[in-house]
Amino acid sequence: MKTLKTTPKQDGFFMPAEFERHSKTYMIWPERPDVWRCGAFFAQKTFAEVALSIAKYEPTVVLASSIQYENAKNKLSNSDQISVIEMSSNDSWVRDTGATFVKNQEGILRGIDWKFNAWGGLTDGVYFPWDKDDLIAQKICDLENVDRYRLDDFILEGGSIHVDGKGTALTTESCLLSYGRNPSMTKEAIEMKLKLYLNVEKVIWLKRGIYLDETNEHIDNIACFVRPGVIALAWTDDTNDPQHELSKSCYEILSNETDANGQKLEIHKIPLPKPQILTKQESTNTAFCSTFQTKNSGYRLSASYVNYYVCNNAVIMPAFDDSSDKKAKEILQKLYPNRDIIQIYSREILLGGGNIHCITQQIPERLQA
Amino acid sequence: MKTLKTTPKQDGFFMPAEFERHSKTYMIWPERPDVWRCGAFFAQKTFAEVALSIAKYEPTVVLASSIQYENAKNKLSNSDQISVIEMSSNDSWVRDTGATFVKNQEGILRGIDWKFNAWGGLTDGVYFPWDKDDLIAQKICDLENVDRYRLDDFILEGGSIHVDGKGTALTTESCLLSYGRNPSMTKEAIEMKLKLYLNVEKVIWLKRGIYLDETNEHIDNIACFVRPGVIALAWTDDTNDPQHELSKSCYEILSNETDANGQKLEIHKIPLPKPQILTKQESTNTAFCSTFQTKNSGYRLSASYVNYYVCNNAVIMPAFDDSSDKKAKEILQKLYPNRDIIQIYSREILLGGGNIHCITQQIPERLQA
Repeated sequence: MKTLKTTPKQDGFFMPAEFERHSKTYMIWPERPDVWRCGAFFAQKTFAEVALSIAKYEPTVVLASSIQYENAKNKLSNSDQISVIEMSSNDSWVRDTGATFVKNQEGILRGIDWKFNAWGGLTDGVYFPWDKDDLIAQKICDLENVDRYRLDDFILEGGSIHVDGKGTALTTESCLLSYGRNPSMTKEAIEMKLKLYLNVEKVIWLKRGIYLDETNEHIDNIACFVRPGVIALAWTDDTNDPQHELSKSCYEILSNETDANGQKLEIHKIPLPKPQILTKQESTNTAFCSTFQTKNSGYRLSASYVNYYVCNNAVIMPAFDDSSDKKAKEILQKLYPNRDIIQIYSREILLGGGNIHCITQQIPERLQA
Repeated sequence: MKTLKTTPKQDGFFMPAEFERHSKTYMIWPERPDVWRCGAFFAQKTFAEVALSIAKYEPTVVLASSIQYENAKNKLSNSDQISVIEMSSNDSWVRDTGATFVKNQEGILRGIDWKFNAWGGLTDGVYFPWDKDDLIAQKICDLENVDRYRLDDFILEGGSIHVDGKGTALTTESCLLSYGRNPSMTKEAIEMKLKLYLNVEKVIWLKRGIYLDETNEHIDNIACFVRPGVIALAWTDDTNDPQHELSKSCYEILSNETDANGQKLEIHKIPLPKPQILTKQESTNTAFCSTFQTKNSGYRLSASYVNYYVCNNAVIMPAFDDSSDKKAKEILQKLYPNRDIIQIYSREILLGGGNIHCITQQIPERLQA
């Protein structure tokens, strides 16, 4: 397949919103013992539950390393809609390492292969090396038989952007302006990259995301588009929680913004669960890694219900065994009246540093503008 | 995707002939230094030449290990019709390790995943282990999104069978009745397996194949169907060559046989090149492996022009820098008047133990009965 030197904007390609129709979902089977406790045994159960849930709504591809291939096949064998395909990686965050897909009016797809450096490279990235992760987008483009735009000069993760499919992108300054990504670029230059590659007219910048989020506070943990003009925002009323100020700032910015169509935004607050704290057992069950900031017990995990995935006819959302689980589900059911809301207890994903949205990546449906 | 417990015959699926239309070709990038001299550097050049040649006629997928992925991408970057997809393997013989595809009248495809044991397992196989090779057919079925028939109780390689797509299969006794494959099965039981899985009415058994062929003399090195009723047979007139007796026996059997339609067979003799001998340099440039029968210099390689690949609108055939190269090409051009005949100097593949047919595997076109 071709590697293109042009931009999607030039070529008439744009990023469709996640809530539009998909042809399939990609996931990556978890494996590394220094991210996932007990040799990823428990994370694999949760990932399998997520994959099997999505596969009820759309075909799902699970990428697994050579070593894990048969294990993944076996744990996912209950669904005829799941394909297991071999691929090496450094970890399992396909939202961030997979290609961002763009489409033109004829329904042709292409992939954007952003440069990846594990959320901040040697400055404040999460692991080293990330060489295999940086090849995933390219490999997915080959699997999907699509040409790709490769950016060798621009670091971005898919989880740090959301679009409404109608000209508006949403992101956080804490992440996109972080020193570990594109330190030589101004905010204006970064915004221009988003406009050229996502083919959007407007970028709405929130300042911060979820407290202690290791991704430098990706947008996909704090806020997303439910549909054009409608935003879901992670929220806490507890003024003693450092998250309160962060969410309040987002709310204020969004309240005063309009989208690319000049429309005011309708904002829905999604309650946060109570602080989710890493236990001693969880901490000691995770293998040591010299290139990590080890998380000790007592560490607050960056839990948020907003880290959900919208697939065809359903929303796959986290549960934390928390008193807000039910409320969050009810709100999402109202926001997505025509979709099933599937709630999955996802603490094992959270322990790795993300949630359901971070471990999924949609391929837009072709042939439908 | 599903693993089926039925047989293709029951389900109305049959194996199309190689000379029918393909949707694409699969190959596997060579890598192991104990099969391919100089760390596979030279073999990779030849494999790339084969892939780039086929890609002029049909899309081509080259499977490469994680370690070789970028090298393969780079060496194959001249074609937009080639996709490189990551896959681990024990070696590069996708004819033998890839799925055998069958099709029904609606054009739906399925894969047959024969059990693989490296051409004879611990009895007289070529390498150990072969665990990754035995997963390749399954992985290709997932890549192609097709259900598969898995035979856990029957060893077969794709290179040991040819079909005319009209009810006739061609094979060799030396291989299919070998002690290293299915020693507990009678010839009749093996023939029944072929009939049930390839969905053929008749199996024509040749006794032997090409002298010193490490595969126990695969059919694809000695004879093939040019089209229904027409056979190409590797031949030497030299009565001092041990190959003469082997080819003569094939000729006699074929002369007295009819195909599934009751038609007599038209046999075309394809001259063999002069004996191709392993040089000292070639032998010493190949890494040591404790589980191999080391080939010393002076070893006669099992060269044959019949080990060619028929893709859409072309035939990709070997050359050996031999005086018969031209003659063999002329004969094939006459046999395939509507196809381009592309001849590739393939000694580097021969050094690994096979030739162009052994390193290619077609995916039949769908939606065309």
